[in-house]
Amino acid sequence: MSDWAIVLAGGAGTRFWPASRVARPKQLLPLASSEPLLAATVHRMAPIVAPERVVVVTGAHLLDATRAVVPEVPAENFLAEPVPRNTAPAIAWATAEIARRDPDALCMVLPSDHFIAKPDAYIAAVKTALDGARRGYLTTLGIKPSRPETGFGYIEVGKEIAPHVNEAARFVEKPSLEVAQKYVASGNFLWNAGMFFYAAKAMNEALAEHLPDVASKAVECLQASALGRVFPTMQSISIDHGVMEKAKRVAVVPGDFGWSDVGSWQSSWELADKDDAGNAAPEGAIVIDGKNNLVWDRTGSGRTYALVGVSDLVVVETEDAVLIVPRERAQDVRLAVERLKSAGSKRV
Amino acid sequence: MSDWAIVLAGGAGTRFWPASRVARPKQLLPLASSEPLLAATVHRMAPIVAPERVVVVTGAHLLDATRAVVPEVPAENFLAEPVPRNTAPAIAWATAEIARRDPDALCMVLPSDHFIAKPDAYIAAVKTALDGARRGYLTTLGIKPSRPETGFGYIEVGKEIAPHVNEAARFVEKPSLEVAQKYVASGNFLWNAGMFFYAAKAMNEALAEHLPDVASKAVECLQASALGRVFPTMQSISIDHGVMEKAKRVAVVPGDFGWSDVGSWQSSWELADKDDAGNAAPEGAIVIDGKNNLVWDRTGSGRTYALVGVSDLVVVETEDAVLIVPRERAQDVRLAVERLKSAGSKRV
Repeated sequence: MSDWAIVLAGGAGTRFWPASRVARPKQLLPLASSEPLLAATVHRMAPIVAPERVVVVTGAHLLDATRAVVPEVPAENFLAEPVPRNTAPAIAWATAEIARRDPDALCMVLPSDHFIAKPDAYIAAVKTALDGARRGYLTTLGIKPSRPETGFGYIEVGKEIAPHVNEAARFVEKPSLEVAQKYVASGNFLWNAGMFFYAAKAMNEALAEHLPDVASKAVECLQASALGRVFPTMQSISIDHGVMEKAKRVAVVPGDFGWSDVGSWQSSWELADKDDAGNAAPEGAIVIDGKNNLVWDRTGSGRTYALVGVSDLVVVETEDAVLIVPRERAQDVRLAVERLKSAGSKRV
Repeated sequence: MSDWAIVLAGGAGTRFWPASRVARPKQLLPLASSEPLLAATVHRMAPIVAPERVVVVTGAHLLDATRAVVPEVPAENFLAEPVPRNTAPAIAWATAEIARRDPDALCMVLPSDHFIAKPDAYIAAVKTALDGARRGYLTTLGIKPSRPETGFGYIEVGKEIAPHVNEAARFVEKPSLEVAQKYVASGNFLWNAGMFFYAAKAMNEALAEHLPDVASKAVECLQASALGRVFPTMQSISIDHGVMEKAKRVAVVPGDFGWSDVGSWQSSWELADKDDAGNAAPEGAIVIDGKNNLVWDRTGSGRTYALVGVSDLVVVETEDAVLIVPRERAQDVRLAVERLKSAGSKRV
């Protein structure tokens, strides 16, 4: 049973505008360290998955840019979706492709746009999750929650199956703050970080049972001639809704490895190297009477930044756009993107 | 008696960093309208002074950049100071040069880095000041104060000499706030805006009396071969201290023509075209939940600015430097420049 990684790299999003664009989404950007999130995702798996067994699913329009970020992954391991159809079709297609090459494969599904501060602890948790997968469970990693986050799904931990492997009693969608607070207090709920570990055969059986149309179309999509016609007809549904919530043998492995979904510029600031005043800024920047600012410059101009008397600010500079927003309003970047879209701007 | 203008364009300064630099001082920048302040200074005099009678005094290191801004002024009308020596030597030299060409000249000394919103009212005041000059007075324009500014000198208005022309009873240096408040309340004090009007003969007599060394060296400097040797030996002193405060026949003409010394980015914001929310920003900029911001972009990149949830901010972008500072702290730009200087930065 060889281990294969399916890296989901088709994401779009506006929360990192102006760094992120339709043609340059979050996973292709170095938002948490010096390498793009996608590259970091592949590199941190290196101890257990060689690049030859990494399959990257991305959008057709992102294919070239995605390949450029992980050139060590063979060209035939990139699966280009003609249109986005959420995670279930992507995972079904990639799993079918891996099963074609290696019917006894163990697969791990990995988001490409998260950050992990403790890669060794992560690899240890992944190995445990692969144990669960070997036992026939659709296994997920659950993150010990550090706050009552309402933006994530939660997984209720059930009875123990093996050391550090528990049944997943329940998948819960994004809860209210009140419910999230109860979950965190209970100690029995983990964040769903969208990482899944399974034997290809087990997932294919679960897909056949719960998403039979997706399952059969995924196999059709192995024929290049069918892809453009069939893929767009697949149901757009997440693997969580489509399979994990319904499948019988589902397990969860608790993990604590400095995970972040890098959800906004606020996260990027949290993860950045900062000076004593909490400022993360390009080399040579001057900050006077200011703290906890993030200056993120991708202009390549090596410009000198001077911040005088400003704090808790995010400043993002690219060649054709500049964003200035308080850290606590980092999520509102989408308002600017919406405004630009409705104004017909190409810079989104 | 022909009218000549002496435009003082040798100023340096740090308050408009990063737009202003040692090699690109304030007067060469479009800080209050679409044309550089120096160009606006020359253009607004056009109704009464042809470019052939405009003499521009600047620093040798600024000569080329200064000529480029007012190409209509003949090359032989630029006087390049080898070193800065404050206003008295500059004015003495320019007055000597004009007197050499036109012994009966009437001169007007004009700072090159101020803004005037009402050019017609200004020209009317200038004509009145020239009346004073024709009567043999060293005449200055005094600005009706709109606030108890402690950064300007004041002129006490004395008895009337002619319609709208009064004796200047007293020149006062930058006062304390308490004193400034009294001055404004009295209605009898005007701001000294550094504009002077005089017959070349009258100024030369006053210089000979109060600054005899400067007066004789200024004449020596008419010989190009003497300039580099003699000019640096002149006393560095302002015309206010050196002559105006001491001379006997000194007049003041009150003026109210929308004058601004364009003293900081705050002034630049005040003078800029703004939208309904008080934002002055490049075309295409988006401001969401923000008001009274100034975005000043000289990168020439036509970038899209998005400000979300920030107000009262100054953002200045050049090709090699970026400044972000609250409007009310605009004066503190000098702190950043000092820091850069001590760090050995070339970007000052």
